[in-house]
Amino acid sequence: MFNVVIVRYGEIGTKSRQTRRWFESILMNNIREALVSEGIEFKKVEAKHGRILVKTNKAREAVDVLGRVFGIVSLSPAMEIDAELDKINRTALKLFRRKKRELGLERPRFRVTARRITKEFPLKSPEVQAKVGEYILEKEESEVDLHNYDIEVGVELMEGKAYVFVDKIYSWGGLPIGTQGKVVALLSGGIDSPVAAFLMMKRGVEVIPVHIYMGEKTLEKVRRIWNQLRRYGYGGKGELIVVKPKERERILEKLREMKKEKYTCVFCKYMMVRHADRIAREFGAKGIVMGDSLGQVASQTLENMYIVSQATDLPIYRPLVGLDKEEIVRIAKEIGTFELSTLPEDEIPFIPKHPVIRGSWEEFRKLYRAVFGEEPRKRQC
Amino acid sequence: MFNVVIVRYGEIGTKSRQTRRWFESILMNNIREALVSEGIEFKKVEAKHGRILVKTNKAREAVDVLGRVFGIVSLSPAMEIDAELDKINRTALKLFRRKKRELGLERPRFRVTARRITKEFPLKSPEVQAKVGEYILEKEESEVDLHNYDIEVGVELMEGKAYVFVDKIYSWGGLPIGTQGKVVALLSGGIDSPVAAFLMMKRGVEVIPVHIYMGEKTLEKVRRIWNQLRRYGYGGKGELIVVKPKERERILEKLREMKKEKYTCVFCKYMMVRHADRIAREFGAKGIVMGDSLGQVASQTLENMYIVSQATDLPIYRPLVGLDKEEIVRIAKEIGTFELSTLPEDEIPFIPKHPVIRGSWEEFRKLYRAVFGEEPRKRQC
Repeated sequence: MFNVVIVRYGEIGTKSRQTRRWFESILMNNIREALVSEGIEFKKVEAKHGRILVKTNKAREAVDVLGRVFGIVSLSPAMEIDAELDKINRTALKLFRRKKRELGLERPRFRVTARRITKEFPLKSPEVQAKVGEYILEKEESEVDLHNYDIEVGVELMEGKAYVFVDKIYSWGGLPIGTQGKVVALLSGGIDSPVAAFLMMKRGVEVIPVHIYMGEKTLEKVRRIWNQLRRYGYGGKGELIVVKPKERERILEKLREMKKEKYTCVFCKYMMVRHADRIAREFGAKGIVMGDSLGQVASQTLENMYIVSQATDLPIYRPLVGLDKEEIVRIAKEIGTFELSTLPEDEIPFIPKHPVIRGSWEEFRKLYRAVFGEEPRKRQC
Repeated sequence: MFNVVIVRYGEIGTKSRQTRRWFESILMNNIREALVSEGIEFKKVEAKHGRILVKTNKAREAVDVLGRVFGIVSLSPAMEIDAELDKINRTALKLFRRKKRELGLERPRFRVTARRITKEFPLKSPEVQAKVGEYILEKEESEVDLHNYDIEVGVELMEGKAYVFVDKIYSWGGLPIGTQGKVVALLSGGIDSPVAAFLMMKRGVEVIPVHIYMGEKTLEKVRRIWNQLRRYGYGGKGELIVVKPKERERILEKLREMKKEKYTCVFCKYMMVRHADRIAREFGAKGIVMGDSLGQVASQTLENMYIVSQATDLPIYRPLVGLDKEEIVRIAKEIGTFELSTLPEDEIPFIPKHPVIRGSWEEFRKLYRAVFGEEPRKRQC
């Protein structure tokens, strides 16, 4: 029935024509990648007057997949027909009836919204709306209500064609992946880090997922989380990089010896960022994403984040820093990582009973020197 | 009518009793500060069984003000009475009637939700619900509907008192300001930076607002923005710090001379962070907040943010980095800064026509040396 998907990507704040072109072409590539990798046949993907048209007879399936491509604001499975009033009327009626059945309404309220994107069609938009509305009213039990409608029939007219649709599915927005370079995302297996990575991906960043090994159970969990996340990664999806840290025993032993176990977590995070820093440089990534949210646990303090930030010259992006746990959980559920994040993981035997809450950089430096015999950051890991 | 406000602050993830106590005491202080500074009389603020009670005859007014205190999840203006079924019934009916009038409903659906916080009351919660529900049904045209209700009558029982209410106003959540230390917030006069500062405040951070002077019109605007933001700042509201940068002319001249005007914006932001860094150290602040959102304008790139981040050892917090403009605007409108941010400001005469999009750190260093004769960050500003 449908033969095209209308993809709308909004203004996205890139005003120059050149940037817009470039943006469009990346978005089109990501759309193609999404459809190809999900096995959805399509004839053509083309940019037209600020929207993208995906010609396909699998419009419904395509909409499902494209709902996970960033940079898209809304999607409509539509019928492309020649722009003749008669055809428009009949198509609109057909879609209207279908939607009416779907909603199970006896006398739906509706409105018609028409837009002439190019101006060759002889009737103006309000006239199209009136004509199509009258036609539907004649044929179907219904009433027009411009504000409280159950069904909105959309008609977009361009270049001699009409696009008729009754659904507009709102999507994630954001920017197409590949427009904003790369960052390394540290994935721990918890609820927060996948959400942080997701939000960066949403802003067009290609994410290089890195997991610092804790044990097989946690690794398996992180693999599943990344497999879920990469469903949003059309345009750039890397393989999970797993780092087995060699220095852990040495650090733990030394901290225990000095009775400074309370610094274990800060040390551990510092080393994670050191590894992320090294991988970022190898891959040409321009930053590191972390799932920190301020004050979520007692040890997520400005002081501890200061220490951890010293592990790299790269900016650390913390998109969750201003969010409450509730908001983070809501996103995690929406993107399908929440369930996975609550799967069992390896117990970490070395978490101290009372982790340091406001760690001191000076003290950390001293501990670092005691463990490694040199200044923090001098040492490669 | 109301004589108390029930303040709920949820679990907030601080599980140790000690942390909770400390958190409660800061929240109570912030509540007191809010009420005193808005001239709302109250008799007492006390913590009881995981909630805070504000005894006041100005409950409605208090709720308005407390809606801007972070750390609060929900608020109910309530009637505190002795915990006797008879009294509970009559109070519930009175509030029910009042709410019914307010909603203008003839036959409202309602439910009663009771909780025994302490257990001395002889009836269990479901019994209280049944009794109070029956009483209301007898006296008032209405029906019980546990799922689709127009009115919910709440009854909380503790220590021989009953708290009856019909409104539960959801609030910002977050953490009480003062629990998380201080950061410097750069306020430019645009839409984004106040939202970024707001989100950090919401997570319990005291914000030190800094504006780098551009002209009187912009300064006036930023003052108004900060006056709006500080309405959320009970618990720590600083005065706006205005920095008049002395080095601007020198930078502009030199960049022009070298035909590198395209670096003006990056240079300007770098210097802003240098100033923020100096002020942070003076005030003992542990980070800098900025309104950056990735890719919002062509020059908000990972590369340019990398350069700017080199201006400080402190972590730069960018709570908007994962948000779309639309989401930022929505928050700005909600907190009342949007209108102010769109007021006219001083034109900036030195914005280059084509700002650098992917700035290079090496090139920036060279330019910096050419302007100041030394390495970036060596120089104090």
